[in-house]
Amino acid sequence: MVYLTRKAEFSASHYYHNPEFTPDENQRVFGKCNNPNGHGHNYTLEVTVKGKVDPKSGFVVDLKQLKDVMSREVLDAFDHRFLNKEVPEFSTDVPTMIPTTENLAIAIWRRLAPKLKAAQLYRVRVYETPDLFVDFYGEA
Amino acid sequence: MVYLTRKAEFSASHYYHNPEFTPDENQRVFGKCNNPNGHGHNYTLEVTVKGKVDPKSGFVVDLKQLKDVMSREVLDAFDHRFLNKEVPEFSTDVPTMIPTTENLAIAIWRRLAPKLKAAQLYRVRVYETPDLFVDFYGEA
Amino acid sequence: MVYLTRKAEFSASHYYHNPEFTPDENQRVFGKCNNPNGHGHNYTLEVTVKGKVDPKSGFVVDLKQLKDVMSREVLDAFDHRFLNKEVPEFSTDVPTMIPTTENLAIAIWRRLAPKLKAAQLYRVRVYETPDLFVDFYGEA
Amino acid sequence: MVYLTRKAEFSASHYYHNPEFTPDENQRVFGKCNNPNGHGHNYTLEVTVKGKVDPKSGFVVDLKQLKDVMSREVLDAFDHRFLNKEVPEFSTDVPTMIPTTENLAIAIWRRLAPKLKAAQLYRVRVYETPDLFVDFYGEA
Amino acid sequence: MVYLTRKAEFSASHYYHNPEFTPDENQRVFGKCNNPNGHGHNYTLEVTVKGKVDPKSGFVVDLKQLKDVMSREVLDAFDHRFLNKEVPEFSTDVPTMIPTTENLAIAIWRRLAPKLKAAQLYRVRVYETPDLFVDFYGEA
Amino acid sequence: MVYLTRKAEFSASHYYHNPEFTPDENQRVFGKCNNPNGHGHNYTLEVTVKGKVDPKSGFVVDLKQLKDVMSREVLDAFDHRFLNKEVPEFSTDVPTMIPTTENLAIAIWRRLAPKLKAAQLYRVRVYETPDLFVDFYGEA
Repeated sequence: MVYLTRKAEFSASHYYHNPEFTPDENQRVFGKCNNPNGHGHNYTLEVTVKGKVDPKSGFVVDLKQLKDVMSREVLDAFDHRFLNKEVPEFSTDVPTMIPTTENLAIAIWRRLAPKLKAAQLYRVRVYETPDLFVDFYGEA
Repeated sequence: MVYLTRKAEFSASHYYHNPEFTPDENQRVFGKCNNPNGHGHNYTLEVTVKGKVDPKSGFVVDLKQLKDVMSREVLDAFDHRFLNKEVPEFSTDVPTMIPTTENLAIAIWRRLAPKLKAAQLYRVRVYETPDLFVDFYGEA
Repeated sequence: MVYLTRKAEFSASHYYHNPEFTPDENQRVFGKCNNPNGHGHNYTLEVTVKGKVDPKSGFVVDLKQLKDVMSREVLDAFDHRFLNKEVPEFSTDVPTMIPTTENLAIAIWRRLAPKLKAAQLYRVRVYETPDLFVDFYGEA
Repeated sequence: MVYLTRKAEFSASHYYHNPEFTPDENQRVFGKCNNPNGHGHNYTLEVTVKGKVDPKSGFVVDLKQLKDVMSREVLDAFDHRFLNKEVPEFSTDVPTMIPTTENLAIAIWRRLAPKLKAAQLYRVRVYETPDLFVDFYGEA
Repeated sequence: MVYLTRKAEFSASHYYHNPEFTPDENQRVFGKCNNPNGHGHNYTLEVTVKGKVDPKSGFVVDLKQLKDVMSREVLDAFDHRFLNKEVPEFSTDVPTMIPTTENLAIAIWRRLAPKLKAAQLYRVRVYETPDLFVDFYGEA
Repeated sequence: MVYLTRKAEFSASHYYHNPEFTPDENQRVFGKCNNPNGHGHNYTLEVTVKGKVDPKSGFVVDLKQLKDVMSREVLDAFDHRFLNKEVPEFSTDVPTMIPTTENLAIAIWRRLAPKLKAAQLYRVRVYETPDLFVDFYGEA
């Protein structure tokens, strides 16, 4: 049983806002992240799959397939986008998630888990900056 | 004569658009960076000053002053901002600059150069991503 | 359930010495780290908390509170200090810990665990250099 | 119980080829990694051991011994080598492993686990590039 | 006048050998790099161009064109190759260059300089490892 | 003409103090760096030499010789030392230098320049932290 991790990057913008909060609450909870014009990050995504090594190939997962799934399900949808306006998990009206790093990790897990075949999704890690990252293992 | 460099980071969003281009030209020249909702980056700024070492302090520049100038003139204005809408160099109507990494380096030079006293500004480096950066030395 | 990690840095000096060892034993076990003048490192601290995401904020923990706790309990006490002389865990006479990376991780856990409220401390990681780090999960 | 990790680097070349595959299959499965002349990487190895902290030394493991074991068992054998021709796990005829990152992690585990004494091997991580790494915990 | 730098990576293998040296000289001068099976690296290439910023685009160079030139002239030829056997500068019989980091930087300069149009090639930097790199500015 | 750079690290402690300053001046100018117990850093040293590539070896400098000079002249003297007490440039009474990053770069230049033979010393860069570094080119 081995765990293989592949990194990728995407650049996106976001802001934090809860429509059920008053403006003061939004400012107090979210500070400068509440700016509705948005601001952005170079996000780093690490996707870890686990599985047995195929003795014929030496691979736990076909890297090209993993890369394609990551590109199609995540990067194409998130890269160079304003998350609050252009990514459904964060932009539809009812119910929606605030695009924090925590929720990004959960949303990416939900996109990837059903699309991976040979190997099992083990962990999604998202770095918002080099100093802040979130791990999600699919735990309820 | 020594050269001292200090790094700082800011997160901002931007997009590329020339109002004198047709939509097709904007798309051809700027590609996915033309998305008007903006996208973002964790920019890394490196400011280099040159000067003689003060024998009393061993410093070429008072680091606290340098940090304060960088914060006041650049970080406070750029961090968590949509550059095209909130930073004058990139948002006023006539004439304005497109917020490319090249123009960010030039704009930051113009903000810092007149505010540094003891030491002379030598270079402004801006990383848009770890794989792309621009240096500006104040050359015409 | 998500795991959020925040990094911070501090610069400190230390040396390794067991007063119950002979000078020869101290030299054999600790080598050049036994130099009583001390030497130093840029330590990197990673603090990981786990918890459920608050649906109102999208946060597992208030980042500002986490940062404040890390600053008050660890950085203010350790940064720009000689650990063997100025930090109680490593400087009081009886009984004391040698300020190895292992013991730094344990001491930092003990400082942080009782101060975190909303989210639970999950892991403390301390890098002494980029090539050496220790993880502590609070396991006996 | 603490977990201590030490990094090291080695430079090696390899290629991927299964002699039971047809040339077309080798090309389809391995792509440009199938080039029999080999290509190379700066591999980064992270070895994690777990154990209790010795109260006399403050160490979970004697770092010099750990470094010596890593050098003798892994770096001396792998560094500046063509893995498919010069490292037994990947070069002997029957049966052999393809030198993928997955199999490198497993082979390194098998080399290190029986040689570590005071502390127990917990994880072997191998980076093939900064964007791709494999973890092995000795799980069947 | 600004200087824009773009990074890229390639993985290749090489060895050092001068056919005019005796085996002893080759061993003395090149050490373990003389192993004829080759060993490998994840090379990092930084290409810097200089030029004026086009006021219409804000660019000193069309990044897509720069990327295409780097891929076509360097990466496609060097990546996943054994430099001594597959790259003409290092593999043809008379006269040839030893594929040291120094000569890699010079060879890459010669490939890129005639292909860049809008902006002028200013510097080629090649990292063999994170701890060793060479800069070439086209100086005789 | 190529420029080759080699990195190395050392861990040391230091503090800033000018005996001609009053305690208040020392505190005002040096802040928490004035703590006489010292604090420490993992310094990164980059040494750049320039010269012509020897066509027989492909080298601008014998890397082993460069490494030996760096170890003997700098690392052996600075690593695991309290600079103010154990390194002559910073510890002798009259006249002495305050061990700032600026003065470290100058002191290292003076140690290395006379010892390098084949290639010429071009630049000494010293990182005190990843966010602060000084370059010295031997300019008066």
